Amino acid sequence: MIQRAGRYTLSLDEARLASWASAAGKKEAEGPLGTCFDETFSDNSLGQESWEKAEAMLQKTTVELALGKISLPPGGVDFILAGDLLNQCISSTFGLRPFGIPFLGQYGACSTMALTLGLASVLVEGGAARQAAAVTSSHFCSAERQFRLPLEYGGQRSPTAQWTATASGCVVVSREGPVQVRHVTFGRIADLGIKDAANMGAAMAPAAASTLLDFFQDTGTRPQDYDAIYTGDLGMVGSELLCQLTEKEGCSISAVHEDCGLLLFDRDQQDVHAGGSGCGCSAAVLCGMILPKLASGELHSVLFAATGALMSPTSSQQGESIPGISHLVHLVSSC
Amino acid sequence: MIQRAGRYTLSLDEARLASWASAAGKKEAEGPLGTCFDETFSDNSLGQESWEKAEAMLQKTTVELALGKISLPPGGVDFILAGDLLNQCISSTFGLRPFGIPFLGQYGACSTMALTLGLASVLVEGGAARQAAAVTSSHFCSAERQFRLPLEYGGQRSPTAQWTATASGCVVVSREGPVQVRHVTFGRIADLGIKDAANMGAAMAPAAASTLLDFFQDTGTRPQDYDAIYTGDLGMVGSELLCQLTEKEGCSISAVHEDCGLLLFDRDQQDVHAGGSGCGCSAAVLCGMILPKLASGELHSVLFAATGALMSPTSSQQGESIPGISHLVHLVSSC
Repeated sequence: MIQRAGRYTLSLDEARLASWASAAGKKEAEGPLGTCFDETFSDNSLGQESWEKAEAMLQKTTVELALGKISLPPGGVDFILAGDLLNQCISSTFGLRPFGIPFLGQYGACSTMALTLGLASVLVEGGAARQAAAVTSSHFCSAERQFRLPLEYGGQRSPTAQWTATASGCVVVSREGPVQVRHVTFGRIADLGIKDAANMGAAMAPAAASTLLDFFQDTGTRPQDYDAIYTGDLGMVGSELLCQLTEKEGCSISAVHEDCGLLLFDRDQQDVHAGGSGCGCSAAVLCGMILPKLASGELHSVLFAATGALMSPTSSQQGESIPGISHLVHLVSSC
Repeated sequence: MIQRAGRYTLSLDEARLASWASAAGKKEAEGPLGTCFDETFSDNSLGQESWEKAEAMLQKTTVELALGKISLPPGGVDFILAGDLLNQCISSTFGLRPFGIPFLGQYGACSTMALTLGLASVLVEGGAARQAAAVTSSHFCSAERQFRLPLEYGGQRSPTAQWTATASGCVVVSREGPVQVRHVTFGRIADLGIKDAANMGAAMAPAAASTLLDFFQDTGTRPQDYDAIYTGDLGMVGSELLCQLTEKEGCSISAVHEDCGLLLFDRDQQDVHAGGSGCGCSAAVLCGMILPKLASGELHSVLFAATGALMSPTSSQQGESIPGISHLVHLVSSC
């Protein structure tokens, strides 16, 4: 049964993660988590004729893998919740078109994995779905040409910029499985006026702080009650700001904080500047590393707080600041 | 309590629509429903410095109006579900940024009003929210320059093209109110290979047929059991195709079918070719006309099946066909 805990948090009993899968591109495969992913692609085109179609294929791949692990046919999934960074979410719509599963399109920028997972969990817990899937993706090449510069231009990147991950993650929520969804906190839009689109971490850090502080307040818990708090994807700049913001509120998370954007790549070796980003970054780290550790009992209780920057090139060109959002899912090992 | 009815439909008992509001632009105010809207703007810029900011203001306006009618402060809304047609859904994120309400971004193209309303109803019914708001918008000028041609170019429109409405609608779902949400059917992606981006009606009609036929099958009802079946926004071409498709399946809806895109404008007088479209079209028709008629008892039981085309200019340029989707909400007068 869904219960409201405090002002912003939902408390769940029965939603479980039955299966998950991750897929990643070449650079991600060469990073510290390279061996964690279910599938990696040495050619980032995935044999497709455009980067957008390659990204759609990433989502299709992780959905097939996640369903396959529990021998669940697409018809056994009541809803699929998905979104991505591309205009009109075309990697989701084209990637999931073949499955014939009722489709609930979501938009949370890089927070999308927590948004889809949180909502899928609420749908299962509330009896709307027996099984619901949550999936998202990003692709370096489709994101660069849509949000930044043509790849061929070879533009210089600022030190605060992050590297959009070529990756996808899919989770199947059910009532049985090795990981429990204990709480969900859907975030509020936070905007402290950051306008630098090459410094998304700074724009998103206040949203992460807001959602985490709401969650601690609502549940009466503290950062040290959790094995780890994973944000995604603040990178180096945003992570430092988040630690400062939470510390200022007397609720320091530094001792248990990790960021998916910092876990995915080796910043010293891989030239990703402030770290990884993109919907697929936190999705792949969740499905490739965090969930396996919860399933094995290596981790017992973690917070997954994905973060998104809710801007577009148009809003930035029109002088707008960058609103951030962070959605949080509290995951517990069933071991 | 949420119950599953058949394969694709959710049956609800307790979700009610407590309040709603609509806003529209100049051309919509001059149309057949001009007097129905809560607020109309004679200047489509709404005093803003860009069309995108004007569209964000439309959403802000309807949220304020809908909350104001029941004297509900933003803090009384547990979640707001919103989306729009613009890249990265910026009319929603910037329009709703001031409210501080937990934000669940949705993407369903022109089906978004049914997606947000259906999901808000499920959240209230399942106990996740006491009050949840659903809102969407579109703006002719922001849509034209993003999806089609610069306004200044003055391009000719094909006879099958539709006119994106400058409009918004917001609904507040609660456990009390004059309209009940009885069923929700979230749609599956349907794609019969239509590639003409100037003929969205044809691309979306199969999705509307699929969702309606699923709903009739799941509930054991027939079209004549409803006072009206409102699709949005198929326009003239898509409406004719939908009637043919349902008739072919032995389930003709012609006698009770209306389309929001055909209701919003006078096709003879207003030069909108095949009719209206855009997320805001079905949202404003729902909030300006359908819900008031349900609240007064003039209508008793209707289906609201909004339709969306899940493409982007990029996917069309890459030769992709146009996937359609339709989400359905069954609304009943509490009178």
